[in-house]
Amino acid sequence: MTFLEKLESRQKKAKTVLCVGLDPSREKIPQSIMAKGNPIFEFNKAIIDSTHPYVCSFKPQAAYYGAIGAEKELEMTIQYVHDEYPGIPVILDAKRSDIGPTAEMYAMEAFDRYKADAVTVNPYLGFDSVKPFTDRKEKGVIILCKTSNPSSRDFQDEMINGLPVYIAVAKKAVTEWNYNGNILFVVGATFPSQLREIRKIAPTVTFLVPGLGAQGGSVREVMNNGLRDDGLGIIISSSRAIIHASQNDDFAEKAKEVAESNWKEISENWKN
Amino acid sequence: MTFLEKLESRQKKAKTVLCVGLDPSREKIPQSIMAKGNPIFEFNKAIIDSTHPYVCSFKPQAAYYGAIGAEKELEMTIQYVHDEYPGIPVILDAKRSDIGPTAEMYAMEAFDRYKADAVTVNPYLGFDSVKPFTDRKEKGVIILCKTSNPSSRDFQDEMINGLPVYIAVAKKAVTEWNYNGNILFVVGATFPSQLREIRKIAPTVTFLVPGLGAQGGSVREVMNNGLRDDGLGIIISSSRAIIHASQNDDFAEKAKEVAESNWKEISENWKN
Repeated sequence: MTFLEKLESRQKKAKTVLCVGLDPSREKIPQSIMAKGNPIFEFNKAIIDSTHPYVCSFKPQAAYYGAIGAEKELEMTIQYVHDEYPGIPVILDAKRSDIGPTAEMYAMEAFDRYKADAVTVNPYLGFDSVKPFTDRKEKGVIILCKTSNPSSRDFQDEMINGLPVYIAVAKKAVTEWNYNGNILFVVGATFPSQLREIRKIAPTVTFLVPGLGAQGGSVREVMNNGLRDDGLGIIISSSRAIIHASQNDDFAEKAKEVAESNWKEISENWKN
Repeated sequence: MTFLEKLESRQKKAKTVLCVGLDPSREKIPQSIMAKGNPIFEFNKAIIDSTHPYVCSFKPQAAYYGAIGAEKELEMTIQYVHDEYPGIPVILDAKRSDIGPTAEMYAMEAFDRYKADAVTVNPYLGFDSVKPFTDRKEKGVIILCKTSNPSSRDFQDEMINGLPVYIAVAKKAVTEWNYNGNILFVVGATFPSQLREIRKIAPTVTFLVPGLGAQGGSVREVMNNGLRDDGLGIIISSSRAIIHASQNDDFAEKAKEVAESNWKEISENWKN
């Protein structure tokens, strides 16, 4: 089963396109959890257990683990999802990229070591930097297209041959890089009109859409502009607004409330 | 002392611009080393001890450690250089990039956890993704400009307002991003005419130039096209051709021979 098959099966079954980002900040984790062994894993486990009914995917952010040397807890987190919720795919948000032989190492990191089902990849180095990822047929390769941050305009909005860079990236990725049908795009929820524009030139590609909550994106605008004709094709991701909804012992319960509320908003705006 | 001060002090004192990349492939490390505890560290330690007279910097490549869960050995490697050869700065080649709050975590990873003196950064996400790195005045931030791989032409050579993307990146980085004077560029040895072009628009910036040896770049062309007027301003990096010159027990000795030979070639072509 490929990543996209697993994802869509889950999306249909659980009727959700919500993805919970696992980007835990140590200083926001309650003391009762920090006192345990492997506190980052224990925190994630509680979030996963409480929010799983509402999600189509979990997305740990590699930087939050790398900054504090918590690689083992990242491994444990992904394994936990595979063991306990085998229908829910895991996206490793790592935004890796390098020349071919080194990109091969990053593909090993994401897929063999961490056992992620998909990984985010930066396109700046071109095809030979992406190929070690896309060669893994069963995995998802999520190319940064139009990112959610304000400075994404610095280069992504510049024009190449009359087209914005993010469109040039999308066009190349969907034609030349998609030989295994496992390409997805990152398109920020903060740019709904660009989302619509990219949907037009990539009608069948699935988009990972971050930037809800803390960053200000709207579920309704994302659903209106991003859904495919078949009513699928998007993954709406939220991290901090869910996992750190409370910094007290009720964090898992509060995370569940926010995830449920996001799920309801998704349902109300879903034409599926 | 900033990264650039440390680097130039070392370059002048040791009369070298050579950087040895520490990208160890487990299958090329001799059995006698693999049998030890922390074999990746032991391998690096032997390479560092044998090649240090010829280098201005060591550059571990994060992917090679991430792929096999050798983060602790990466920490040990960098600490070993700091302890034993405190005049030699360490560049972490990680090509990280993400939206601001996440980029802050990657800056922590490179500078606080691994204690690197400089890190490579991908510019695709724009200024707010770079600022958490450049805010660290004493650290070097090495922006991918024109990378050494063949597919770098996919986007980096496309034209924005009549200029190639790599020139647009260089111009923005050298003006808007260099408020702390700690920006450097990656420019591949495989593209000497682009190296000359970038030198013209960034006469004072230091370039990290990978792509020698296995990738086919030439020391003479790099020196001719890349040096600043003051005879400095480049770091020529070689990895596999040095560290895996032999896969037998004489690997450290052979690495020294190749490094010395590179150093001689650099000296012969140096107008300093």
